[in-house]
Amino acid sequence: MRKIIIGVMGPGEKATAVDMQNAYELGKLIATEGWVLLTGGRNVGVMDAASRGAKSVDGLTIGILPCHDSQGVSEAIDIAIFTDMGNARNNINVLSSDVVIACGMGAGTASEISLALKGNKKVILLSVDEESKNFFQKLASKNVYFVNDAENAIATTKEILSPNKTSSI
Amino acid sequence: MRKIIIGVMGPGEKATAVDMQNAYELGKLIATEGWVLLTGGRNVGVMDAASRGAKSVDGLTIGILPCHDSQGVSEAIDIAIFTDMGNARNNINVLSSDVVIACGMGAGTASEISLALKGNKKVILLSVDEESKNFFQKLASKNVYFVNDAENAIATTKEILSPNKTSSI
Amino acid sequence: MRKIIIGVMGPGEKATAVDMQNAYELGKLIATEGWVLLTGGRNVGVMDAASRGAKSVDGLTIGILPCHDSQGVSEAIDIAIFTDMGNARNNINVLSSDVVIACGMGAGTASEISLALKGNKKVILLSVDEESKNFFQKLASKNVYFVNDAENAIATTKEILSPNKTSSI
Amino acid sequence: MRKIIIGVMGPGEKATAVDMQNAYELGKLIATEGWVLLTGGRNVGVMDAASRGAKSVDGLTIGILPCHDSQGVSEAIDIAIFTDMGNARNNINVLSSDVVIACGMGAGTASEISLALKGNKKVILLSVDEESKNFFQKLASKNVYFVNDAENAIATTKEILSPNKTSSI
Repeated sequence: MRKIIIGVMGPGEKATAVDMQNAYELGKLIATEGWVLLTGGRNVGVMDAASRGAKSVDGLTIGILPCHDSQGVSEAIDIAIFTDMGNARNNINVLSSDVVIACGMGAGTASEISLALKGNKKVILLSVDEESKNFFQKLASKNVYFVNDAENAIATTKEILSPNKTSSI
Repeated sequence: MRKIIIGVMGPGEKATAVDMQNAYELGKLIATEGWVLLTGGRNVGVMDAASRGAKSVDGLTIGILPCHDSQGVSEAIDIAIFTDMGNARNNINVLSSDVVIACGMGAGTASEISLALKGNKKVILLSVDEESKNFFQKLASKNVYFVNDAENAIATTKEILSPNKTSSI
Repeated sequence: MRKIIIGVMGPGEKATAVDMQNAYELGKLIATEGWVLLTGGRNVGVMDAASRGAKSVDGLTIGILPCHDSQGVSEAIDIAIFTDMGNARNNINVLSSDVVIACGMGAGTASEISLALKGNKKVILLSVDEESKNFFQKLASKNVYFVNDAENAIATTKEILSPNKTSSI
Repeated sequence: MRKIIIGVMGPGEKATAVDMQNAYELGKLIATEGWVLLTGGRNVGVMDAASRGAKSVDGLTIGILPCHDSQGVSEAIDIAIFTDMGNARNNINVLSSDVVIACGMGAGTASEISLALKGNKKVILLSVDEESKNFFQKLASKNVYFVNDAENAIATTKEILSPNKTSSI
């Protein structure tokens, strides 16, 4: 009965045009696979773009909001979870995702990748810079994957899900 | 796009047979209305019964878990949100529900009703004892409603949702 | 090395003059015993009055704040813990207190008493109304104590701490 | 009245001998300055070593625990705050610290540095490797400082505190 949930994390206001494009494509592909998309739920950046991508193919979208009211929630969110706990909600984002995909980089995103690795989650980093690659590779080489486009992120997600499916969730 | 979420709160291991029956019926009726059911997500008591009720008519069920792994999650949960924050997750349960329905009583349920009232949410109490009625009536008379069966809980939920819908969520 | 921490919970903006007077006296007596005072840390109501009472005899005061910045922190707080998690911080308040004393009543206070009882903490209710007494008595008769003044709250705290001291903390 | 709180973050079970030595020295120097030491509170690694260092000169130590009971709390902790929220408590650690010092590296520590930077806190990194230096330098060059020993960490902390003191806390 439990649905597979894929988390897409990335910058909000500071997302680049490439981040947004990747996020939209990720959301679309995740929904196409029949997976549920989970993001930080706000109406900006990677969260918003991924959610819009998922809705473009009629997927189901969950937003784990840092706030307690509906201002600032992405219009592409179906299910809004209001935590009212600021950035501490980042831990909920990653614990609730079967696989975490980071799309772009920033302090919030770095905290999500780190919390995911701390919680023994697998994390896919999409198109990150050399400094990020070197840092996270050294931090947790067994649980991080580096890919260059959304299609490869999905292929890697499938690989991660397939062998461990019964044990990991 | 945002779906209406109705939270059903109540005892876990200590739920009575009547609580369980009410919860199952509530879950069923909530799903029949097209609303999403939100509970504490564990595989016991009111949480489990309400979720099973919702699934009996093919509803969508969300569980906000106190833990970080899948042991103890109700099989009737579609979307499991792992908070790993124990009873502090009770605040997320109520903030994320458009209307909260309490079914039965216990310390955890009392905390959820109280947190909901603190957050200016409307709370419906189903078949509670005199002590609970007197206490919550005095605490927040404007935001609590007392009903005696699941059908009336749903009717009251509709009343609460209808006039305030645009402003409340 | 661990210090004994006594939590004083109660209304903020809606505290009555009697609540404030009781809270001030409680803070003073707690500090006189050499215990650390823990409150919700804001500069209003019971939190503020208890902290000022403790500082009047040079006690140590901790405030567990719902916010993330220093606006609104009581001037009588020595150690400010910023949770940025709104009312979910109420669970931290009670889990971190060896004994919880409720001084006055409101939705937030009711959530703290309930969360404390859920966490198997002992709770002393000072000068509460009949409805509160009847409700919490029925909810958890073994873990709630009712007293009528600050001196008796302290005497009861000593009784609670003495036999269980080594096992409870 | 508010005391200055300096947070020392670092690995638990995986801390190196050098991390432990640095942490002990940091704790000692922080307490010597009259500042309060804040750590993650457990009885292992950097948390434990820093707290023991602070107690060696009779400092005040606060531990923000991920759990809800006293098993696993460092004996060098004076004030134990039980959050029962796992790694989400890392956000509280950094929000409650006037300055954050990272001593060693790991996934949990990386999350704390990242959450601190997300919350606009200044972070001092002590003796970190090149990969960490390059990553955090690029992530938030204005708010990170790199030092090679505990004495320099304290000197940098003083610089950070002095000009902004009134506005930052």
